[in-house]
Amino acid sequence: MVLDLCSEGTICMNQFGQFFRITIYGESHGNAIGIVVDGFPAGIFIDVSDFSEDIQRRKPGGIGTTNRVEEDVPILLSGIFLGKSTGAPIHIQFQNKQARSGDYEQQVNIPRPGHADFVAYKKYKGSNDYRGGGHFSGRLTLALVAAGVLAKKLIQPILIHATLLEAGGSRDIEAQIDRALENQNSIGGLVECRILNVPIGLGEPFFDSVESKLSHLIFSIPAIKGIEFGSGFQAASMRGSDHNDQILKADGTTLTNHAGGINGGISNGNEIIFRVAVKPTSSIGSMQESINLKEEQVVKFQIKGRHDACIALRVPVILEACAAIVLADFVLQNKASI
Amino acid sequence: MVLDLCSEGTICMNQFGQFFRITIYGESHGNAIGIVVDGFPAGIFIDVSDFSEDIQRRKPGGIGTTNRVEEDVPILLSGIFLGKSTGAPIHIQFQNKQARSGDYEQQVNIPRPGHADFVAYKKYKGSNDYRGGGHFSGRLTLALVAAGVLAKKLIQPILIHATLLEAGGSRDIEAQIDRALENQNSIGGLVECRILNVPIGLGEPFFDSVESKLSHLIFSIPAIKGIEFGSGFQAASMRGSDHNDQILKADGTTLTNHAGGINGGISNGNEIIFRVAVKPTSSIGSMQESINLKEEQVVKFQIKGRHDACIALRVPVILEACAAIVLADFVLQNKASI
Amino acid sequence: MVLDLCSEGTICMNQFGQFFRITIYGESHGNAIGIVVDGFPAGIFIDVSDFSEDIQRRKPGGIGTTNRVEEDVPILLSGIFLGKSTGAPIHIQFQNKQARSGDYEQQVNIPRPGHADFVAYKKYKGSNDYRGGGHFSGRLTLALVAAGVLAKKLIQPILIHATLLEAGGSRDIEAQIDRALENQNSIGGLVECRILNVPIGLGEPFFDSVESKLSHLIFSIPAIKGIEFGSGFQAASMRGSDHNDQILKADGTTLTNHAGGINGGISNGNEIIFRVAVKPTSSIGSMQESINLKEEQVVKFQIKGRHDACIALRVPVILEACAAIVLADFVLQNKASI
Amino acid sequence: MVLDLCSEGTICMNQFGQFFRITIYGESHGNAIGIVVDGFPAGIFIDVSDFSEDIQRRKPGGIGTTNRVEEDVPILLSGIFLGKSTGAPIHIQFQNKQARSGDYEQQVNIPRPGHADFVAYKKYKGSNDYRGGGHFSGRLTLALVAAGVLAKKLIQPILIHATLLEAGGSRDIEAQIDRALENQNSIGGLVECRILNVPIGLGEPFFDSVESKLSHLIFSIPAIKGIEFGSGFQAASMRGSDHNDQILKADGTTLTNHAGGINGGISNGNEIIFRVAVKPTSSIGSMQESINLKEEQVVKFQIKGRHDACIALRVPVILEACAAIVLADFVLQNKASI
Repeated sequence: MVLDLCSEGTICMNQFGQFFRITIYGESHGNAIGIVVDGFPAGIFIDVSDFSEDIQRRKPGGIGTTNRVEEDVPILLSGIFLGKSTGAPIHIQFQNKQARSGDYEQQVNIPRPGHADFVAYKKYKGSNDYRGGGHFSGRLTLALVAAGVLAKKLIQPILIHATLLEAGGSRDIEAQIDRALENQNSIGGLVECRILNVPIGLGEPFFDSVESKLSHLIFSIPAIKGIEFGSGFQAASMRGSDHNDQILKADGTTLTNHAGGINGGISNGNEIIFRVAVKPTSSIGSMQESINLKEEQVVKFQIKGRHDACIALRVPVILEACAAIVLADFVLQNKASI
Repeated sequence: MVLDLCSEGTICMNQFGQFFRITIYGESHGNAIGIVVDGFPAGIFIDVSDFSEDIQRRKPGGIGTTNRVEEDVPILLSGIFLGKSTGAPIHIQFQNKQARSGDYEQQVNIPRPGHADFVAYKKYKGSNDYRGGGHFSGRLTLALVAAGVLAKKLIQPILIHATLLEAGGSRDIEAQIDRALENQNSIGGLVECRILNVPIGLGEPFFDSVESKLSHLIFSIPAIKGIEFGSGFQAASMRGSDHNDQILKADGTTLTNHAGGINGGISNGNEIIFRVAVKPTSSIGSMQESINLKEEQVVKFQIKGRHDACIALRVPVILEACAAIVLADFVLQNKASI
Repeated sequence: MVLDLCSEGTICMNQFGQFFRITIYGESHGNAIGIVVDGFPAGIFIDVSDFSEDIQRRKPGGIGTTNRVEEDVPILLSGIFLGKSTGAPIHIQFQNKQARSGDYEQQVNIPRPGHADFVAYKKYKGSNDYRGGGHFSGRLTLALVAAGVLAKKLIQPILIHATLLEAGGSRDIEAQIDRALENQNSIGGLVECRILNVPIGLGEPFFDSVESKLSHLIFSIPAIKGIEFGSGFQAASMRGSDHNDQILKADGTTLTNHAGGINGGISNGNEIIFRVAVKPTSSIGSMQESINLKEEQVVKFQIKGRHDACIALRVPVILEACAAIVLADFVLQNKASI
Repeated sequence: MVLDLCSEGTICMNQFGQFFRITIYGESHGNAIGIVVDGFPAGIFIDVSDFSEDIQRRKPGGIGTTNRVEEDVPILLSGIFLGKSTGAPIHIQFQNKQARSGDYEQQVNIPRPGHADFVAYKKYKGSNDYRGGGHFSGRLTLALVAAGVLAKKLIQPILIHATLLEAGGSRDIEAQIDRALENQNSIGGLVECRILNVPIGLGEPFFDSVESKLSHLIFSIPAIKGIEFGSGFQAASMRGSDHNDQILKADGTTLTNHAGGINGGISNGNEIIFRVAVKPTSSIGSMQESINLKEEQVVKFQIKGRHDACIALRVPVILEACAAIVLADFVLQNKASI
């Protein structure tokens, strides 16, 4: 009996962190999405307005982004009392109001190339919520951004700043986006993140290296297909005498920073630097081919609805949130030793 | 009282996996290193000889590798009875016999550039075992390789194959190594891993995507500074119409494989492909500068002892082991749904 | 900076389970409480009406229970689509409407004996939500009951049944409650739980024994102060020849069941039986003494508001929920081996 | 293919703790048993002699205990350098030298009543190591005791003291044991544990209450069938006015201690008190009946070999170790807030 039920699908895991722990839930077209943050210390001031700036940065609406515009007002449902964290889990919820399910009915049987439609259908034996990608939707990154705001408070004075370096292979980003829009196409991008004021000693040898945990969470962001720290892929063609960062002072300051601020998986006190590759949005307006899963034949189709021509434009603030969440986890782990 | 003790250092975490769980221990110059594998099903044949091939592939001794040669015989201490796994934890131990601590005494106060010496000293307030990198030593990858052998048994018929594509920026790898050896220098490399016969549906949405868990474990391998899946960093300059992999058949076969076999964090049944950047070995024979932490002044010094000119040569089998361990974790998680 | 913030409190952990994972949040007098269930397989029918019976059983309102009556309508916010589970996290939320904060203002400085008021104040440095016990409130057991409903679906055909055996030391329970009410006092109780149709092999040697995980979750229920399996404390005065359960058949059926259906931490296929001791409700109407934390002097005070004379009356359905959650965790872990 | 292998058994989990983490391995008649302690801070003095007293207390050999006498010398294989912890995982190993496998061959097909023989056979489909209980053996508690020694160092000035209150239902313990030995029988016992100098605020609301984690680990000790905190089962027949512990001082000192030092799952600064019920040893010398699993018929048989008439005699030091391990986990979690 149990086996029959269970063979319908598989369990999934929507939690991250050992000390600063997040649990995410929701679907693109459900009533609400949200995140529960556990492990957040008591006594820290939190106000709805704290979330405005980062939520605004993530918001679509500018050139090259989808025109689905949600209000994105965070509802703080628990863990806050008299304007301060209580030590209990903090639950941040966002209502979905602008969902237009009709746009996606076509996709029930025709998995969109580059999307999770096909794997979700197979993994959950057809029980998945296919509307707008369901639980796989990029909309859930809004919850990450909200958790990131809390994490940023916790890790002060550590500062995180991410920027879009290139889109479509060029630094003239606007021109690239214009061209993509013209052609009902999309483009990828390269985003860099720099972290300042990092204490020495964050991260753990082996399995919980700074690179391990950052990459783990960052690959949760839809569309990320690569990550490199410091000199990254360039290091593969360097010599040791060039790559080694000479230590100049007893506080660990180095002459160069090919290591990206991390040795042996542990922060060395210098700036942490990494870059991620963002693939072009899979949803494009032009005609495509795919398979109709019911009829088992190749079909032509077109994706309607609202999409981003360059999702990479919205990645920096999400990347910062992920970095902040990972650092908050390390900071809590490391507290007593600082 | 407690606080005093604890302020001496911080806790660390040496476990990985939720279902196929590994716990690693040991130091480069201690008596032994090893790994405990928990979650391994009962009834699978295991023999000491199963480990020979992969241990041999990891072994140094060839051109461009250190000449510290350990016997590396796995001692199977628990979890195996009458030639089969019992369902209890399997403990694989390796004795250290060729440790030459004398080589490293110089490093007590002079942290080697590019190594974990400085961060380990700071993180553990000087209590770390500094001999040969201690717990940060690459020697511990031997334990990963051993656990990988068990994982490979478990994930059949999935096949994993990693190869060194380039060293020092060139495909003429031997020439690059010769030159590095001549100059008492070292070189980095680029390693590719391909995974065949992957079932559809491994991985979890969001936090336990295939990319998340693979990158998490793979960044545990010393010297890895970047990872990319499918088209990876190239995707950042591609257009959606080029990057989208057209689905050709109802079994999920795609025309191209820019996604590297993964959509939405879930395996799509096509080949999983990823590449990692291996930095040049930090230990080089030529004269370098660093800081003397006791005297707080810059000093010149030279690293003696046995080192790899191109550690990337030894990475493929370790990369395979990590991939196998992650896949074993996913396969156990996914069992009932296949 | 970080240290200052963090010294205001400590992290807490509100998650349970490795495979069937629950995350709980909310406070007695906040806007809502709820639970996120992760790891629930796709394709199982779920309807709001499924929750009615167990929620009704937990509801106060009868003789001997508080007269705070909430509607307790579960809001299913995610993880369900077209009437079935999708494989994504299921979020069940309950709104708080009948909270009367005024009742509790007295407790800000005067911790009630037997309650968490004092420890919460100390642990969270005064930032805790003290209204009605805040996050420590028995109201959160409503969320456990809701998660239990999902768990019960998953573990079919396993059946769980808990009953109140005694209250105030007597089997004439009504008389005991009447007397307690008369005296503005409260009474404890003894609750027994029996689990039928248990497959052989649930539980894990050592740390995840059936007793370990059941007791772990059950001690989360406020007011539980003891648990015993099978003959329990009586076993302490028995002889081995009396306690050993003779195995009668190859299917594991035993003549007696002193072990309560568990050997070596693993279910043996016989009925699992355990009993818990429920302490008398700490909130009583009669005059008590405590310390005023601000003025540091002993004061007399009386608790007003709505309370249970015998909280043990409401424990059985919560106990069943906890047992179901633990068994669901084991069943998912064990799936492939049944 | 995978499914076939996996259907041979199930995964098991041999780890405990979130911050002070232990991984246990080994079998009664294998080459060695041991434990890996992760999360132990650097800089704490550790010497082999630190383990002597507790190992001696656990040792059999006295009246009422088995005469299998192992040397039980702890081998410290990693994580210690120059006499101090390094911050890396500490591995403590014990060799098995006195194993007499011949004693147990009879049990291959005849599961002993009260033992894990039957469930282990079923759970692992006959692949389990049946010699002396294999991984289910009480011998593994030696590893717990060793980890407990490390934990006790960490939690200073907290003191833990456990004592045997009763055996076979009487406080004249020696007489009870003599009688059991005469009759080739065994007896149970009642063990009490008291913990002094506990800081306020250990434990977490809901799922990681002090009672939850203590009971979780303590039910890992073979033969424990019940646990109660403070007044425990007696509380079930008490009234609130009697059970409530009046708070006398602003430091939390209470007049009585019915709560056993824990409110709302959190330590309140008073002594933590709990008692456990230890069942009589299942191995007895007198004739018993069981089922022969191969021939599927009831048979008479006698257990030979070395056994304890009163295993409860050896429980106190193991109970202390478990309590210390749990408290170490809480202390590390709580560090910054003390």
